[in-house]
Amino acid sequence: MERIEQHASFGGSQEVWRFHSDALGATARFGVYLPPAALRGDRCPVLYWLSGLTCTEQNFITKANVQAHAAQHGLIVVAPDTSPRGDGVADDPAYDLGQGAGFYVNATQAPWAPHYRMQDHVAEELPALVEARFPATDRRAVSGHSMGGHGALVTALRHPGRYRSVSAFSPIVAPSQVPWGRKALAAYLGPDPAAWAEWDAVELLKTARERLPLLVDQGEADEFLARELRPDLLEAACAATGHPLTLRRQPGYDHSYYFIASFLGEHVAHHAAALRG
Amino acid sequence: MERIEQHASFGGSQEVWRFHSDALGATARFGVYLPPAALRGDRCPVLYWLSGLTCTEQNFITKANVQAHAAQHGLIVVAPDTSPRGDGVADDPAYDLGQGAGFYVNATQAPWAPHYRMQDHVAEELPALVEARFPATDRRAVSGHSMGGHGALVTALRHPGRYRSVSAFSPIVAPSQVPWGRKALAAYLGPDPAAWAEWDAVELLKTARERLPLLVDQGEADEFLARELRPDLLEAACAATGHPLTLRRQPGYDHSYYFIASFLGEHVAHHAAALRG
Repeated sequence: MERIEQHASFGGSQEVWRFHSDALGATARFGVYLPPAALRGDRCPVLYWLSGLTCTEQNFITKANVQAHAAQHGLIVVAPDTSPRGDGVADDPAYDLGQGAGFYVNATQAPWAPHYRMQDHVAEELPALVEARFPATDRRAVSGHSMGGHGALVTALRHPGRYRSVSAFSPIVAPSQVPWGRKALAAYLGPDPAAWAEWDAVELLKTARERLPLLVDQGEADEFLARELRPDLLEAACAATGHPLTLRRQPGYDHSYYFIASFLGEHVAHHAAALRG
Repeated sequence: MERIEQHASFGGSQEVWRFHSDALGATARFGVYLPPAALRGDRCPVLYWLSGLTCTEQNFITKANVQAHAAQHGLIVVAPDTSPRGDGVADDPAYDLGQGAGFYVNATQAPWAPHYRMQDHVAEELPALVEARFPATDRRAVSGHSMGGHGALVTALRHPGRYRSVSAFSPIVAPSQVPWGRKALAAYLGPDPAAWAEWDAVELLKTARERLPLLVDQGEADEFLARELRPDLLEAACAATGHPLTLRRQPGYDHSYYFIASFLGEHVAHHAAALRG
């Protein structure tokens, strides 16, 4: 495990680490922000952030200003990559499949199965590593954007009791029903939609054992809203099962980091309240 | 004049515009953030931000989180490119000369003189355009980073009365005395250092007619500190002439946008106080 970047930031330390991931069978990178409290030796709770299509660990740590909020609330923030990487790792020329587009699933199909185990990576391997190697408690929150918003919802719903809070920006809420999701799930999990249900937030809500409240922000000027994101499906699924949902439709906002940055402070405060409570 | 990007951001609008710049003899882009107050129709003062080597208008608007602070204080923020661009514009393969490295001077030497008039662009052309086309007052502040910190100091010192406040992050304070500056000024202005003095903050301070207070933040872990930035020379020049200077050496901080973002809120508050006063 090797630290490859370190920058002072809001009194804390924004770092990037590289290590051999057993889950991915590849070298993996992640960003970690250590707030001032952690540098003073306090053990801090951890917010995991899952990024969207085409991203690496860099996008969120350079564009969202999460460090200001994490410093204020005393949270560690961990930002994984969005897929396995490397010469030996299967890929596809499209931006929405393969490297940069892992969809936070454990793939079962060739050629993806050997390395594309992003769910194990983000839900098991990284928390174990972070809690062993950084001044972190086992109190965890998870959030993300777009494909990573899907990742956050699915990861929390699949692991009752593991996360104290979950939120998402512009999430793909029903990958089984939209083009991005159907393409990726068919490739990684095979053509039978029965195998997709355990990776689809709207499907998982039908049998959720834990009523973890969902906080979702969605820009109304988001170019992917009607075709890929479909917050109406999440709203209907939560209404049908009585799952607590705060869905905020933000007029004028698009799919970009300008949207994320505008509301990230409120999400971090939401997670901090749950993690400190 | 054409708007090529528009994103809702902190209740305001982050935009990028393209226009034919007479000063540069080329198509120029700039970022402009319109805070909520401007969208409501209020005329707002303007903070100009000058970026460093290799940057375009994008770096600052995507990485610094300036929009949060500008929204709070009701400031318009204008972020120009760092040089003329285009196929007909002279360039150099090095990162520190030519496109991306205009140094905010008006060049006099071939092949640079026809297009490299960044000082006219940022100090004359853009303020005239912004004050005519956006809900802006003629109250102006200027700040920047590294090469752009040099640009901010020099632009304010060359134009007494034009700016209400000036600040800089990690500025090149004495380009005549350091490698980046000597290379660029020799290329753009010719080999005689006598021609460089009017583009060198430490030299300009010797004859400054206006005692505009300087606010400068400098990271102590900045890799360019001793070779290129030399805040000690600024400190000595201000001490010699009684020019008001607040120079803050920030332990542990490097030359990156993580540093800028950490202290930008304080700079924007400083400018807002001067602009609103």
